[in-house]
Amino acid sequence: MEDGFKTVSIIGVGLIGGSLALALKEKSLADKIIGYGRNEERLKKALKLGIIDTYTDSLKEACEAELIVLATPLGVFEKITSEMVSYLKRGTVITDVGSVKEEVVNKLERLMPQGVYFVGTHPIAGSDRTGFEHAKAHLFEGSKVVITPTEKTDKSALERIAKLWTKTGAQVEFMTPSEHDRIYALVSHLPHLVSFCLVNTVAEMDKNLIKYAGSGFKDTTRIAKSSPELWADIFAMNDKNVLHCLEIFTKKLEEVKQMLYRKELERVKKFIEEAKNLRQELD
Amino acid sequence: MEDGFKTVSIIGVGLIGGSLALALKEKSLADKIIGYGRNEERLKKALKLGIIDTYTDSLKEACEAELIVLATPLGVFEKITSEMVSYLKRGTVITDVGSVKEEVVNKLERLMPQGVYFVGTHPIAGSDRTGFEHAKAHLFEGSKVVITPTEKTDKSALERIAKLWTKTGAQVEFMTPSEHDRIYALVSHLPHLVSFCLVNTVAEMDKNLIKYAGSGFKDTTRIAKSSPELWADIFAMNDKNVLHCLEIFTKKLEEVKQMLYRKELERVKKFIEEAKNLRQELD
Repeated sequence: MEDGFKTVSIIGVGLIGGSLALALKEKSLADKIIGYGRNEERLKKALKLGIIDTYTDSLKEACEAELIVLATPLGVFEKITSEMVSYLKRGTVITDVGSVKEEVVNKLERLMPQGVYFVGTHPIAGSDRTGFEHAKAHLFEGSKVVITPTEKTDKSALERIAKLWTKTGAQVEFMTPSEHDRIYALVSHLPHLVSFCLVNTVAEMDKNLIKYAGSGFKDTTRIAKSSPELWADIFAMNDKNVLHCLEIFTKKLEEVKQMLYRKELERVKKFIEEAKNLRQELD
Repeated sequence: MEDGFKTVSIIGVGLIGGSLALALKEKSLADKIIGYGRNEERLKKALKLGIIDTYTDSLKEACEAELIVLATPLGVFEKITSEMVSYLKRGTVITDVGSVKEEVVNKLERLMPQGVYFVGTHPIAGSDRTGFEHAKAHLFEGSKVVITPTEKTDKSALERIAKLWTKTGAQVEFMTPSEHDRIYALVSHLPHLVSFCLVNTVAEMDKNLIKYAGSGFKDTTRIAKSSPELWADIFAMNDKNVLHCLEIFTKKLEEVKQMLYRKELERVKKFIEEAKNLRQELD
């Protein structure tokens, strides 16, 4: 195929893996999609929904593809890739859709046999919803997809992956793995951590009070419904950056705390105005 | 009028005051709505939009109403009420829609002349959007409205106000002012404070990075676009409860921080699961 790949294996058919499968089919970027997973019932259902064309629980069979997409939770990328290594054929491209890049890219690049090309990506299209039931072909349209090449990345594989994402409707952006992790610790991982802590503050004080929550609480904690497996892995793999952001965030909380203790109303107002102005840039 | 009030003065025609005006008209709960404010241009526009029937910049004129609704930012309730005191007539009912109740109710109750009845309320229908341009008659339908009677509250005035809100479609709930403030510090004021701090963490680290924010960041910080005047007043008037919630929240952050330092992945997962489970109760 000129722009796409003949056969694509999706390792982990969830929201992102499933949506990519649907997008590739819709844009004729793959002839055949193989779904790999541990739960046959789930894979059968994905097949029935037309998300994948066939499924397997054999990594060997999954490696019979031109493109392999790692779309499980981050924490098992290394283990799965290690198990695939002996089956990988020259010319195969492997990519991942993990939310942390430096540790992932480093480890996976080291595992690649000669002539097998790894390209790390992160589609910014996650959700608190998980599972292929929420998958849709248009998920990536207008979304950012960050691609994180290194000096080891094969130029031609990089180009093919970038083209693939562009064809799904995504805006492709390139940065180094470490740049990616620093940025997404701030704009994604920290807000998730904060959101979990907000809900658990209610749990600690009196969980029955949750029923009084209005739309403000609901919005700030929507992402607290995200997958525990996924997010524990993300925090663990980007811990240094997340802890740094948490430090700055805690400093901001301390600033407001001091203003409230000292009853510095004008400073509180200015603090809120600063937040409001920057937030409005997003709309 | 059997269920409503002949003339209603709205002191501060914004999102809440404007929406209440529209709801009262739609449900035939008021014959005439007077808008009071400082900005004539704004009041003219509200008049043109049919939100109010007439307007005035004279508190004396605004006091020619059976019901007076305080709907300005919290911080000026006391000043405005003090200025109205000499004009208030026996039998008038005064209510407010402020997001903090104990300090407001205490202060306003003390200001009430003999035979003028104060009832504190808090419609849980605020938004990051402000101004009567966003007002709508149906804003309160299905929303909670908390009414905070005290031992000083006149039973008949309380009943009239409760009936009024019920007729707008709201679910009326009664609690003491201090109970209200303790609960809303947790489920509303803390999330707002956290949201402002999240955006200002980006401001401190590198404000250009805001462009990488996805839907998670957008949701958690939507309420950071709320009014600085309104929220500075809310924090100042409910400072003790807010600071207490902030303490518990900071403890939760510290817990996660320790888990990340110690690489306790299973504990992190459990922490997220706890949040996810409680948050799901809201849907």
